[in-house]
Parts: sequence; structure tokens; C-alpha cells
Amino acid sequence: MSKRYRVVQYGIGPIGVSCLRTVLSKPSHLELVGVIDIDPLKVGKDIADVLGLPDKTGVIVSSNADEVLSTSRPDVVLHTTSSFLARMYDQLVLCASHGVNVVSSTEELSYPYHRHPAISAELDKVAKENGVTLLGTGVNPGYAMDALALMATGVCNDVKSITIHREVDAGLRRLPLQQKVGAGITTEQFAEKKATGMFGHIGLVESIRMIADGMGWSIDRVEEQLDPVVSDRIVETPFLTIQKGQVAGIHHHAYGYDGDELLITLDLKMFVGALNPRDEVVADSNPPMNLLVKGGIFGDTATVATLINNIPLVVEASPGLKTAKDVPLPRAFGTR
Amino acid sequence: MSKRYRVVQYGIGPIGVSCLRTVLSKPSHLELVGVIDIDPLKVGKDIADVLGLPDKTGVIVSSNADEVLSTSRPDVVLHTTSSFLARMYDQLVLCASHGVNVVSSTEELSYPYHRHPAISAELDKVAKENGVTLLGTGVNPGYAMDALALMATGVCNDVKSITIHREVDAGLRRLPLQQKVGAGITTEQFAEKKATGMFGHIGLVESIRMIADGMGWSIDRVEEQLDPVVSDRIVETPFLTIQKGQVAGIHHHAYGYDGDELLITLDLKMFVGALNPRDEVVADSNPPMNLLVKGGIFGDTATVATLINNIPLVVEASPGLKTAKDVPLPRAFGTR
Repeated sequence: MSKRYRVVQYGIGPIGVSCLRTVLSKPSHLELVGVIDIDPLKVGKDIADVLGLPDKTGVIVSSNADEVLSTSRPDVVLHTTSSFLARMYDQLVLCASHGVNVVSSTEELSYPYHRHPAISAELDKVAKENGVTLLGTGVNPGYAMDALALMATGVCNDVKSITIHREVDAGLRRLPLQQKVGAGITTEQFAEKKATGMFGHIGLVESIRMIADGMGWSIDRVEEQLDPVVSDRIVETPFLTIQKGQVAGIHHHAYGYDGDELLITLDLKMFVGALNPRDEVVADSNPPMNLLVKGGIFGDTATVATLINNIPLVVEASPGLKTAKDVPLPRAFGTR
Repeated sequence: MSKRYRVVQYGIGPIGVSCLRTVLSKPSHLELVGVIDIDPLKVGKDIADVLGLPDKTGVIVSSNADEVLSTSRPDVVLHTTSSFLARMYDQLVLCASHGVNVVSSTEELSYPYHRHPAISAELDKVAKENGVTLLGTGVNPGYAMDALALMATGVCNDVKSITIHREVDAGLRRLPLQQKVGAGITTEQFAEKKATGMFGHIGLVESIRMIADGMGWSIDRVEEQLDPVVSDRIVETPFLTIQKGQVAGIHHHAYGYDGDELLITLDLKMFVGALNPRDEVVADSNPPMNLLVKGGIFGDTATVATLINNIPLVVEASPGLKTAKDVPLPRAFGTR
């Protein structure tokens, strides 16, 4: 019989809510002992009422993270508050200072060492001082375009380059994802959003850096490019209708170079009406490697699964700031 | 710059020789400091002469493992002597007692806890006492039909069952592998070999047990079945000609049950003339998972790669007896 883990959910946006539903669906393996969120519409309510569940859980949403962590003594925090590390650094430090391990969906935490070296060093120090493990992960970044690619090369010699394709049919995903990729906007609106620098997928650079680190490769230049996928037909989703000529989604690609040598290529397409949804890793290697997840990994469900599945790994890991390449390979948890 | 590891090769059969060639091909990352083998035709020779290399290495093949380990102070032993744990248990203990980590191709070591619980407990104890890590791995068992399947479920909830197909075109493999699967023998000869209990793939039971352990699943019954693949045509390899009606190879399958529930299915075909060579993992899960390695993982090269690629992981791991599910996900090592 496996250990039952005490869990606090920190952040109850869409991903947090899905995490909560999954935690509550595995009572033999997970016990929800606290929920933290700042939304005044949710604070003070039993989480069952927030989720629309018939039976009270006794777990009340609180905005006082310090108090929740002090009183509930969790094994792990499932942390789903922001994509950006600088915004939630204090939250991680607070969890660590209470001696609590963290699995976080924060994209920038999936491989923070390059973009945020000082914060990373500090988090690693705080984690070790408090004997806890901090892990940022998810399906992408954290799995589809980095960890899975590393794993694919695990049976290869002589890897010269790695190319990763992820094509996602945004039409099958939740509305926020469709909006996130710009489905239904005009190409002019796309250009405006792109100009803000706050548009597109977050994590390609982190994925390239994680792969390079895992492979022991030096990368001296990363190039990113973000283009619209323009729909060549009318496509309807349960939420939106995309007209011909409107934006269906994003084509976001990134390249990692060592000098003039292109070592890592990430090719991410997320758009409504994708015709060949898949995750594919191609390594120019001996033996050659072409790994395909048919249909692609369905992100909404998979992101939550990844967070949940890493709970035992994070609890068992040696202390420190870790990434998906540092912990044992993930596997489903609490399925029976 | 990554660390350079000192390596002793223990056993120089076909796999060991391939390991040696790979070690010598990565001088920036690996330093060969000793070779152990009992073959009187090899003992006392410079390993360059055994391999047919033009330049002496200064590393002489020795049958005195104790002396080699004492004098060469390696970081790791690449161990390729036997498929069976009982036959090489003493070799592992010797390595551990010299404070040396081991990556071994011994199939039974890939997940030894169930078949050899007492030996496993003793090895774990000896490893911890000496601060070393012992890992049995390879492409199968150790990756294709167990670790890769676990990894595939890492982004899944609600896994109800796992089915793994590995189809290998033995016609592309080395002669010992073709002979190992019975290519070119009659069905009567196949039946005789099967009756010895020493025929077929070694490791399916280990793979099932590793998956079950990783998933936290209880398996109370494992069934194995070994059938010949009979050729329906004449097939030629560089080494053999298989007549129509002769054995082309093996179809070895295994099933892991919890009561009447079939949780894990392993379906391994290794035969000359295979038409759909591949590695495929199918999980009945949410999201559904269908992971395919197109063309399959080429075993001869990949087995060696797996052993080499685990060197840094084993050196860095906490002490003890480990399996592929306990160390960080493998990734290619020493490629640049």
C-alpha cells in the first residue's frame, strides 16, 4: 500500500480547480488539507461549494498562506498561481520555509536556471536549508518538448541534433487556451498582441535549456519566432467560430545553436483545426530515434496529471530545486 | 564541461566489446582504466589487440577482478557477463566492496526484487554500506518494455491497463541474436529448446514487475507464453537463410493480472522478416496514450548506449540497488 499524501492546493484558477478535482478523486492516495487563493469570491467558502460538489469537505479556501501551511502540515503543495517566477517567488519561499515540498505549474520554474540564475540559486538554497524539494513541471514545458525528448535519447549514441514537433488542436481544448493562442482574432490583432511580448507559449526557451543541460550541450544562442496560423476555412469550436483569413492559433518555434550549429529545434503549433496533432521527437542519432505520441498529449488533462504524478517523486527526492530531468521518470500515480 | 569518468569494462563478450568501442570513442568524457574477462585467449593482451585497433591503449585484459578494481580506482564498472543474477552476484559484491558503482546488462538485475528477493536485499545492503549504486539496465529489459511505458503514463490519470508491443526484425541484428530467437531451426527443434526453459527472451517478468511497482499496482499472477513465428516465405539475412515453414523467431508474451483483471500485457516479437518493427506503448488512460517509436529501437546499438548513458546517473545517484524507474530519466551522454 502506498503512502497517503497530505496536499495543499495553492491557486484555484482553471488548472488549480482541475487539480483539486483530481486530488479529491483519489482519496486512498491523497488527502486535501488546505486551499489557498486570493479571490474574494472564493475565500471563506468550503472548497466543495467552489467546485459545485454536493458534500462539504471541511476545507475552507483561505488567502492566508502562512496560516494554512502552519496548521495543515502538508507533504506537498500543488502550486498553480502564475506562469512567471518573479511573481510567485515569495510563495515558493514561504512553502519551503514551512518545510513543504512543492510541485508547481509555473512555466518559468520548469527550468529556471538560465532566465533567473539568482532566483534559482536562492530557491535551491532555501529548499536545501529546509529539506524540501521544489519542482516546476507540466506537460509543456516539463514533458512533451523536453523531458520526453531527453528520455528518447536515452537509448542513443552520437546524437547530433534533436527536433521536437508538438501540434495541438486548440479546438479540442478549453476556452482560455483557445483565447491564449489568439483563435478568432485578426492578423492585425495578432501583430499587436505579439508586440506586447506577452503573447505566445511560455516555456520554449526553458525546454531548450533543459535539453541542452541534460545532453551536456553548450548553447550560446536561442532564437524564437512567433507566427500566426491563418485559417484557410471556417472552423467552429464549442466556444468560437474562426472565419477564413482569421487567426486560428500560433506557430511558435525556437532554435538552440552552438555557434553556427543548430542543435535543438522546437516546433510548436497550437491552433483550431490542426490536422496532424501529435508530439514527435526526432533525434539525428545512432540508432536513429523517431518517437511519436499519436494524436498528441492532451494538455488540459495531462498538465494536471503531471502535477499529481510528481507528488511521490517530489516527496521522495533529495532536497533542492529540481527539474523534470533531475527526478526519476514520471509515472501515473494513484490509479488503483 | 562535464566530469570525465573512469571506467572498467567487466566482461568482453559481444556487448562488452561494443561497450569498449563506445567508451574509447568518447575520450573527452570517458577514460578506460581496466578490462576484466576470463577468456584465456584475451587475458594478458592489450585491449587494442583484442578489438583490432591500431594503437595500443596500455589497458591489459585481466582475469583478476579484485586486482583491477584495486589498482584502477574506477568511478564505474560496465558489467556485461551474464543474464542471470545468481551467476554474477559475487561480481557485483566485489565491485561494491571496492566502492565502485555498476551499470550492468544482466537482465535479471533490471528488476531483481521479485525473482531474487534475498539477493536483492543483500545487494542493496552491500551497496549502501559501500556508498555505491548498482543498476541493471539495457534496452529490454530496462527501457523499451518498462521504463518507457512508465514514462508514457507520467502525463496520464486513470490508467486502467498498459499494453506494450515490441516487434524486432531479427534479420537486421547480429548473428547471436538471430540464433537466440531460433531463426532457421525447425518447429520441432523450437519445441525442444523451449522445453529446456532456457529459451526465449529474458526479462518480460522483470518488466512487468517494474511497471507494477512503478504504478503502485498489485500483481498476483504473471503468465508467460512462448511461441515460434513460422516463416511463410524464404527470408535471407547476411548470416542465415530461413526456409518457408522454418522458425523465423519468437513470439514471447506475458501478462500481469490482479485477480481476474489483466493490467499489463507485454507482446514481444523478434523474428527475421518482421514487417512492422516498432516499440509501442498503449495505455487505457485519461488522456489516452499511444506512444510509438517508429521502426523500433535498434537493440544492438541501443543496449550499449543505455549502459553508457546511465554512467553519470549512477555515479550521481544516492547509494543502493536501483532500477531504471529509480534514477532520473536517461538521456544521451558524451555526444559532444
